[in-house]
Amino acid sequence: MADEHPAQLTATEAARRIAQGRLTAEELVSACLERIRQLEPAVQAWQFLDEEHALSQARSADERRRSGEPVGGLCGIPVGVKDIIDTADMPTENGTVLDKGRMPRADAAVVARLRAAGGVIMGKTVSTECAYFTPGKTRNPHNPEHTPGGSSSGSAAAVAAHMVPLALGSQTAGSVIRPGAFCGAYAMKPTHGLIPRTGVLQLSRTLDHIGLFARSLDDIALLATELAGYDPGDPDTRPRARIPFTAVLNEAPPVEPMFAFIKTPHWARSDADTKEAYAELVQTLGDRVEEVELFASATDAWDWQRTIMEAEMAANLEPLWSRGRERLSERLRGLIERGTETRALDYQRILGRLPGVIESFDELFTERYDAILTPPALGTAPKGLAATGDPVFCVLWTLLGMPAVTLPLMQGANGLPLGVQLVGRRNFDARLLRTARWLERKLG
Amino acid sequence: MADEHPAQLTATEAARRIAQGRLTAEELVSACLERIRQLEPAVQAWQFLDEEHALSQARSADERRRSGEPVGGLCGIPVGVKDIIDTADMPTENGTVLDKGRMPRADAAVVARLRAAGGVIMGKTVSTECAYFTPGKTRNPHNPEHTPGGSSSGSAAAVAAHMVPLALGSQTAGSVIRPGAFCGAYAMKPTHGLIPRTGVLQLSRTLDHIGLFARSLDDIALLATELAGYDPGDPDTRPRARIPFTAVLNEAPPVEPMFAFIKTPHWARSDADTKEAYAELVQTLGDRVEEVELFASATDAWDWQRTIMEAEMAANLEPLWSRGRERLSERLRGLIERGTETRALDYQRILGRLPGVIESFDELFTERYDAILTPPALGTAPKGLAATGDPVFCVLWTLLGMPAVTLPLMQGANGLPLGVQLVGRRNFDARLLRTARWLERKLG
Repeated sequence: MADEHPAQLTATEAARRIAQGRLTAEELVSACLERIRQLEPAVQAWQFLDEEHALSQARSADERRRSGEPVGGLCGIPVGVKDIIDTADMPTENGTVLDKGRMPRADAAVVARLRAAGGVIMGKTVSTECAYFTPGKTRNPHNPEHTPGGSSSGSAAAVAAHMVPLALGSQTAGSVIRPGAFCGAYAMKPTHGLIPRTGVLQLSRTLDHIGLFARSLDDIALLATELAGYDPGDPDTRPRARIPFTAVLNEAPPVEPMFAFIKTPHWARSDADTKEAYAELVQTLGDRVEEVELFASATDAWDWQRTIMEAEMAANLEPLWSRGRERLSERLRGLIERGTETRALDYQRILGRLPGVIESFDELFTERYDAILTPPALGTAPKGLAATGDPVFCVLWTLLGMPAVTLPLMQGANGLPLGVQLVGRRNFDARLLRTARWLERKLG
Repeated sequence: MADEHPAQLTATEAARRIAQGRLTAEELVSACLERIRQLEPAVQAWQFLDEEHALSQARSADERRRSGEPVGGLCGIPVGVKDIIDTADMPTENGTVLDKGRMPRADAAVVARLRAAGGVIMGKTVSTECAYFTPGKTRNPHNPEHTPGGSSSGSAAAVAAHMVPLALGSQTAGSVIRPGAFCGAYAMKPTHGLIPRTGVLQLSRTLDHIGLFARSLDDIALLATELAGYDPGDPDTRPRARIPFTAVLNEAPPVEPMFAFIKTPHWARSDADTKEAYAELVQTLGDRVEEVELFASATDAWDWQRTIMEAEMAANLEPLWSRGRERLSERLRGLIERGTETRALDYQRILGRLPGVIESFDELFTERYDAILTPPALGTAPKGLAATGDPVFCVLWTLLGMPAVTLPLMQGANGLPLGVQLVGRRNFDARLLRTARWLERKLG
């Protein structure tokens, strides 16, 4: 049996033990539930959790394994699911009182894939209001006076607090990478269109991404393997061959990777922790890193992201607005009002410029670099629970649909986690993980 | 040698004779040039024509054939190309004085495909101003006091006048089917995304289609075979297997086709010729046709098409507007001004509704019907050259990207051609041609 508390295991290790009969799904889920009972009063990561339902899924997984039937890659592994992702057997409230008690009729495509892989849907994790900026109840597991970040607050906190080894979130600005970094989790936002968003609260077709939280790169790879792929309900997914994330992650890179350190025009706003930590990081990487100035065509991208987000969220949240605008936060109302006034001309003009900027980044990767190195956030998780922090170091990569990962490899002066964000070329997600593995070992 | 004047031959027959050595490309092109010299003063179909350059292409085709090298499906066949489609060796003026003398740097994707298939680019045919409503110089070949229709005025007239067997046009509202019907040509607007628009003046990504003109269904199939297919420059094209248009066209349908006669909410505006001709047509088809009322979800489509066209044209014609708005027609300026004021919210809302309407039509085809029968225009070509007629019977199918074909099978009381429009299911273009062939034989 396990020589560690099962809730401390990575998903990869737990899945191995379950497959070998050295751990049962029921033991694992029980251990995670015990951890939740212990920490939930302080962390408040869960919007919905039914212990008996989670255990019953675990028992089914165990039965299936014992029967000798083939089991999926996540057999018996508990997964937290952000509460904007539909589950047919649990409420999905989208972080707004307007959807209180809402029961979806069907699982989101990613939930269906988790179940098909044998995963246990542990419960629903707290989202900010409609995955925008108004915080939910969750606190940072490292210090309850600090924000966990958002909007995927509960998923990031639950994984970092060892309540579950894996969780799903979503990112439209910086909602996966930022809370991942603040809570000290591994987090990934894959290439736009890699993972289907069918059955997930739509804010912005252009910007919405499913994101992954875990406590190791192997676990990110494990989860990505099960979730990537075409779904007819998401017009931005494409039929393609299954990506061998785990195999690529564990390959040695043919040569030592080269990093482009991009400070972006917003570097001056990052805090002293970040400036110091990245100076050290650059020194450690030596000739493997070069500072690269962001090209001029991309410097307006922050405004572009805001315009697209406002226009698309105004269109997509129209039903909520009609049902009860007075019960939306002032901040969300303001966004929708601005989005309602956006001109189709400006909207199209921005969409028309994105392919050119993506091409410029593609060239950067082709010519010299394996990954972009850049902070995931201005610093460690800010104190206070009234805001979730600034997504400024994420929005460019979200707008361009480029894959990004944050690794919890550093600390601020206050002892809170400080992440390292790596950004890769579109559709080279597995390679990005391989480069991240190299960096992790270099610094480890 | 030919027992008819070579300019009277269909492309299919001419290609056969050229392949067999019974006709040379030079003879064919010479015959077409002779026809142009004779009729061009009345018809005015050509924006650019260089006889020597056309003959030189024909001689190259002949040389290639004589050398025994493999030749393409259009070897030696002259094709007229609408003057909004770029040609590297001829000016492309987009129907506006603002582009007078403009020489593109590269061929449009469709022109490159014509050349690869051995086609002779005969010259550039007249377009209305920026393929919108303000007419060029072209007249209807059946009566010079009547409009040829637009915006692909020159292509429709040139084919109908036997100046060339084939021509390319484009449709954003009703710019292929309407002039095809008015001039008495066969014309087809295939499924949106079937033929790449790379290198063609972009008015509206959502609405723009390449269209085909010919004097037989076999020739439409021949041309579609060469032009359909993925192009990385057009994000709405998809990699797919080559479609055997000619083989499908010449198959017998497994059962007699069933037609849905859709009058649309605009039927009352059609003229007496149309009402009478379609009443007869319905009688002739007997139990093979049923009148189907347009479902409510589609009745706003005319407003939707206008909003999308205005918004996207305002964005795409911005460079022209900046260079010389005072040299655009009042009608085009008005469109751009309205498009500039369109809200992103309305624009997105409409785009979001299209898949549902397309699905409803898909069901109509799955359940019972092989094609929709509907007029291509209000009646025969209107008298006068100041306007090009009303696209009202085309805009729905353009908006939904459904394939449409018009067949010159009827006549108005004034002796001018009256077309029969058939509309098919998206991505079933070859089947639509097969159904059209059945109808042609039934009425012939």
